[in-house]
Parts: sequence; C-alpha cells; structure tokens
Amino acid sequence: MSDIRSLALACRDAAPLMAALDTAAKMALLHDMASSLEQHGDAILAANARDMQQALDKGLHGAMLDRLRLDATRIAAIAQALREVAGLPDPVGVVTRRETRPNGIAVERVRIPLGVVAMIYEARPNVTADAAALCLKAGNAVILRGGSEALHSNLAIAAALHDALRAHGLPEAAITLLQDLRREAMVELLQLTDIVDLAIPRGGEGLIRFVAEHARVPVIKHYKGVCHLFVDSAADVALALNLLVDGKTSRPGVCNALETLLVHKDVAGAFLPRAAHVLRERGVELRGDPATCRLVPDTKAATEDDYAAEFLDLILAVRVVEDLDQAIAHIRRYSSDHTEVIATRDEAAAQRFVQALRSAVVMVNASSRFSDGGELGLGAEIGISTTRLHAYGPMGAESLTIERFVVRGEGQLRHPQSRIEDPGQGP
Amino acid sequence: MSDIRSLALACRDAAPLMAALDTAAKMALLHDMASSLEQHGDAILAANARDMQQALDKGLHGAMLDRLRLDATRIAAIAQALREVAGLPDPVGVVTRRETRPNGIAVERVRIPLGVVAMIYEARPNVTADAAALCLKAGNAVILRGGSEALHSNLAIAAALHDALRAHGLPEAAITLLQDLRREAMVELLQLTDIVDLAIPRGGEGLIRFVAEHARVPVIKHYKGVCHLFVDSAADVALALNLLVDGKTSRPGVCNALETLLVHKDVAGAFLPRAAHVLRERGVELRGDPATCRLVPDTKAATEDDYAAEFLDLILAVRVVEDLDQAIAHIRRYSSDHTEVIATRDEAAAQRFVQALRSAVVMVNASSRFSDGGELGLGAEIGISTTRLHAYGPMGAESLTIERFVVRGEGQLRHPQSRIEDPGQGP
Repeated sequence: MSDIRSLALACRDAAPLMAALDTAAKMALLHDMASSLEQHGDAILAANARDMQQALDKGLHGAMLDRLRLDATRIAAIAQALREVAGLPDPVGVVTRRETRPNGIAVERVRIPLGVVAMIYEARPNVTADAAALCLKAGNAVILRGGSEALHSNLAIAAALHDALRAHGLPEAAITLLQDLRREAMVELLQLTDIVDLAIPRGGEGLIRFVAEHARVPVIKHYKGVCHLFVDSAADVALALNLLVDGKTSRPGVCNALETLLVHKDVAGAFLPRAAHVLRERGVELRGDPATCRLVPDTKAATEDDYAAEFLDLILAVRVVEDLDQAIAHIRRYSSDHTEVIATRDEAAAQRFVQALRSAVVMVNASSRFSDGGELGLGAEIGISTTRLHAYGPMGAESLTIERFVVRGEGQLRHPQSRIEDPGQGP
Repeated sequence: MSDIRSLALACRDAAPLMAALDTAAKMALLHDMASSLEQHGDAILAANARDMQQALDKGLHGAMLDRLRLDATRIAAIAQALREVAGLPDPVGVVTRRETRPNGIAVERVRIPLGVVAMIYEARPNVTADAAALCLKAGNAVILRGGSEALHSNLAIAAALHDALRAHGLPEAAITLLQDLRREAMVELLQLTDIVDLAIPRGGEGLIRFVAEHARVPVIKHYKGVCHLFVDSAADVALALNLLVDGKTSRPGVCNALETLLVHKDVAGAFLPRAAHVLRERGVELRGDPATCRLVPDTKAATEDDYAAEFLDLILAVRVVEDLDQAIAHIRRYSSDHTEVIATRDEAAAQRFVQALRSAVVMVNASSRFSDGGELGLGAEIGISTTRLHAYGPMGAESLTIERFVVRGEGQLRHPQSRIEDPGQGP
C-alpha cells in the first residue's frame, strides 16, 4: 500500500471517533488546541523562520512572503480564531426538518458530518489550523495538503494540534498533514474515492485547475473572484463611490475585492471622472473601454483579458454600459460566479439584477468586501465556494455536514399485504 | 464544434429562461406537458412497440423487458406524475434564512436553480418525463441521456414535452434528449465543465462506475442499495418479521429492498426458523453464516460476496451477530450507504444504531421500502443519492437548487476609512 493511501486510511478510521464527539467535547478540544498553539509558539516561529529563509532564497517576495510570515501576533490571532470556532453552534445532530407522514412514520432530517475532508491549499500556514478546526467542529477528520513553502510552519502547527488530540485520547490521524508534496501524491489523494468524501482546493488558478482535472472524489472549488460593481443610472453617486473605494482599495489582494466597474451611461459623466480621481489618488490603475477613455483622459484601453482578470492588485477594468441589461450580460459573460454588487436607489432594478445573476453572493448597495463567512454571519469560513453544488459562497461549519433522513415508526409497512396475519404462530 | 457540445450549449442558453419562469408559469407548463403526453399516446405506444421488438430480438427478457414496456395505463401514470410535480411547492426563490448583521446589512439565503442538469439513465422511459419535470420545476434546463433500448420511446416522449415548451414560447433545448448514445459521446458530455452543473447517473453498477470514472463535472451518484435489517435482542419479533417480509418480498427488484438480515444471537433461535419458514413460503432463498445454517437447516452458506451483494431478487443474506456493535461493524463494512433498519423496543439501542451509522436513511421499526421521495414527503424524487454531498438519500425538486446569498445594505463599507469624507466635492 502506498504511503498516501495508508495515511488516508488511518484518517478514515479516525472519522467515526470525531463524528461521535459531542458538542462539549469538541469545544474543549478546540480550546485546548488554541492553548497548545500558544504553548508551541516558539517552535512554530522557529519553523516559520526556516520557511521564510527558504522562500527568500528562492526569490519569493511581496505578498507571497507576507502570506507565509508568522509572528507572535499572528499566532495569537490563529489561537483566537480556534476559540471562536469553539464557540460557534455545533451543526452536527441539528434536526432541520421534522414531519409525521399520514401513515404515522416520523421523518426527520438530521445533519451528520461528511466524513473525511481533504483540504488542499497554498502558502498561508494559518489555514492549517483554521481548516482543521472547522472540519473538526463539524465532526469530520481532515487531510491537509499545504504548500511546500510553508511545510515547516505547517508541521509545527500540526504538532501543536496533535498534542491536544492526544490529550483528549483521540488519534493524531484525525488531523493528517501530508508531507509528501509531490504532484503525483496529490493526484493519488484526489482519487481515493473510497476514503475522501470531499476535496476543497483553495488557492490560485493553477492549483484549482489541477485539482479539478485530476480529482475523482467530489470537489468544491474555491476559485477566483472576478467581482463586479454596477453603478446604475439611479445610483446614489456618493454611496457608489464609497463602495468602489472600499471594494477596490481596502484589500486588493483578496478574492472579494472588486475587479471590474460597470457604469450606466446616464451617470458615467457624473461618476467616472470623480471615481478616477479618487482611485488614482489611491494608486489604482484604470483600464477602460473607449467611452471610459473619453471621459477619463490617460486611461489605458482595456482588453478582453482585462475583463476576465482577477487582478488581485490596484488595477480596475472599467466599462460604460447602455443599460442594466448590458451590465447583466457583461457579468454573465465574465463573472467567476463569486460576488456582484449593484448601486441603485431603484428597487426594481435591484430586483432584476439579483434575479438575473446566479453568482454566489449578490449585493445591493453594500461592499463586495462583505462576501466573507464572518461578515455574513457564518462565524468562520473554510473558504468561498464557486461550485454551484452543496455550498455556494462562503462556507462555514454547517457546509461540512450533510442532511440525512432518520425515520421512526411502529412497524409500518409499505405493502399491507406483507403483514403476517398471525405471526405468533410457529412454523 | 462537436454535436454534443453544440446541443449542450443550446441547453445552457435555455437555462436562464427556465430560471426566470415564475411558479404559475412552471405549473401551467407542467400541466400542458401532461396533456401533451396523453395526446401523443398513440405515437408513444408505437415507438415503444419498436423498442420492445428490438429488445426481444436482442434476447432481453423478464424484468428488463418489463422496465421498458409502456401501455396506456403507464402513460396515464406518467402524465399523472407530471401533474403531481406541477402541484409541488416551488423551491426557487425560497428564502431559507434571513439575518440582519450588526452593521445593518440584511443577509438572506435564497434558493436558485443549479442551471443545467445532465440525467444519465437506463431502460425506463418514464424517467425521461419524470426527470425533465422535476428539473424544470426547480428552474433548470436538462440534458437527458437515456438507454439505447428505449431510444424510440424516449424520443416520442420528448416530442410531446417539446410541444408544450413550444406552446409556452420556450426553446426545445430546455429539454435536450441526446440521440448519440455512444460511450464517447457520454464521456464528452461528462467533461463539459463550462456547461453542465450536475450529472446524475441512475442505473446499474456499470453505468455508475463509468460516469464516476469519466466525469469532470460534479456528480451525484444514485448507486446501489445494500439495505440491512438488524433484529435486536429487544425487538418485537412479530414486528421485525413483518418488516422483513415487506422489505424483502414486496418488491425485490428495487434499491430500497432488504438484502441482508442481521439477527442478535439472543433472539436468533426464536426469530430465524420462523423467518425462514415465512420467507421460503414466499420463494426467498437464504444464504447464511454458520450460526444461521445451524438454526435453519438447508440454508446455503453465505460468501463474502453475498454480504456485499445487491441481489435485487428473492435472495437474502443472513448473519447472526453477537451484539449491536457487531451489527454496526457489519453494516459499516458492507453498506452502500443507502438504507438501514433496526427493529428494537430499546430506545438506547435505536439511538446508538442511528448515531453510529452514516447511511442516507436510517430507520427504527419501519420498513426499508419507505426509503423513497414520495413516502418521505418530498412529493417526487429524481432518485436516491448515495453521494454524501449536496443531497443524500431521496432527492426532490429542492435538491435541484442551491442556496446563495443576497445582501442588501445602505452603503455599508468593510473598512470605514474607505469612506470619502466629502464625496460631493468634485476632483
């Protein structure tokens, strides 16, 4: 048996033990994991220093280095995040529906864990703790396959989590961190259809495509966010400008940042020059269609690729549209199904925008940056699904469970003629 | 462009039109589809006669021929099923949750259609109408890939459905029946990741495996039912006997029929000889472990394969177990995650059985034959999912939708410092 398979089998064997934990046990475990992370702080920082040195040697820089870097504050934040997950409602065992059928059988829909979740991610070591905590909260065992840049940091974090598992008499395999980071090993993991119930890839386009191509297990993709803001003719211009600045500049490197601005032609003259001024003050480069370029001098011409791009940077694609319909058509064509925003005071226009689009999150007069599990009330998120199946948009602990049927009867039969007239009589 | 791709693209283009239909429009359409089926009755019967003749020529017989056969009564039943789907609640647009966040944004979870559903099935022509109706009820467009034995019947049924679509000004492509039934064409369909939102294979083991192996689009499997009845030491023996007879003999060829009987050793002596007598009277062959063979003379020895088998026939695998734990371990090992039943008067044993198993449907003192969308209150079903993602167990119209987020605000920002202090001022 291969190493990957035997590790995954051990994780699968741990899954029923995790599924059987009650709410109080999971809460205590998550608190102890948080404390253990703090106690392992020095070891985690030392491991992270190794990763950082290797990353520097490889020539990584900027945002990539920043994502990899840990310090005491960040470790405290990771521990705090685990305590917050501990305090979230337990989704397991929740009865979502209950009905007594005419024949008297009681039918309940009850949430159970998925089983084994494989999380595949890139450089951020905090995902190791966050994903493990959320999977565990939902009663799952988890296989973590992080990026090679963060391997030492991830191992040190996993060691801290394992200490807490051991202290609770639970197998370390419930949180299995893979050290074999070859692509072949990932492919093998993604084809363990008898073991892995769900794979969640979270990262750049290359990773997502690789997983989608090779997976035989179910996958929920956390793909890019090509998020749009449409400024309608009935928009409050000041409000729209604020949504634009918040959406584009408050954190340009994340998936819920705005990438494309669509402006109704009736407000383009009033809105675009002002918007361009404010954005350029904040270092944003605009790439526009001809109408935009006419209204905003020195705007670079946008290409087809710009409208499809997730820049994750201080760049904004801009287009002036004829009307709401053209805005909807543009978004349908270029959207990654993540998050779209309309700024309008016209309720009918807002309603049409919401109904015509099938993105995971559609907002009226609110910032795209709220497209986040914490902000939308999930407490914490394992990511933002762009797969329109099972979970769509921010995914919390509940999305790591599934509803099943529990039926209670008193001997009801489907076919009354099956009933033995006098079952008391022996043969 | 290949034929499959261009057909699928036309179906995708029809999807937004189907998604935009309101409840009344869908209801009228479904009623008109039912009437159209009845009006096309003679053509459908003539097409079915061709299929039946070809099937006879190929040497098909018994249950396979019966599944293929249509008559006036069956056509009336198909039309009636469409009318029942018309009367079901519309899942699209339902707000499942609503919350106002501390910052004032209103967050709703709203059901939208999945988009394009590809249904892949085998000989039963009624699935053509049933699946189309349920997909449409949930606002989806559908691609139907039936079995070659039923091609003429399926084409005739699709023609009837298309008449109704046309009468409502809707594109026929909303219900696309594939005529290219080569395996290569199915593989191509299953890899249209930019078009097909969900593939549902429903059929025998070979079909399901083929789809799982080749699909790149999301798949919800409708796999076999290796359903168990466990007769606990605290069982009401008469009740258990009735569940056994109903589960095994009322319709042995369906997936919610019982395939394996597990009996607690403390009641085996009282239960098994009587059960064997009653079952044998009804033509059931028993295959047992050594303990069963001792209690029931002339019982064939069960093999490992028998415990894993979905017989779909008057055959029952039987095993005497030491206790509830051994029953649970047996089911965990051999179950196909479909439906399991415990007969017991001991509430604690029932609770343990339910919690320890993760099958889609778990029943206490009720027949496995209730594991069905209609019986469990879904109104109709597109099948019974054995994939523990999105939908698990009987799948109704609601399972052909997905919840997404709709957010309404009044200009809320994630980072207050994004706010332009005096946006009224021009540049």
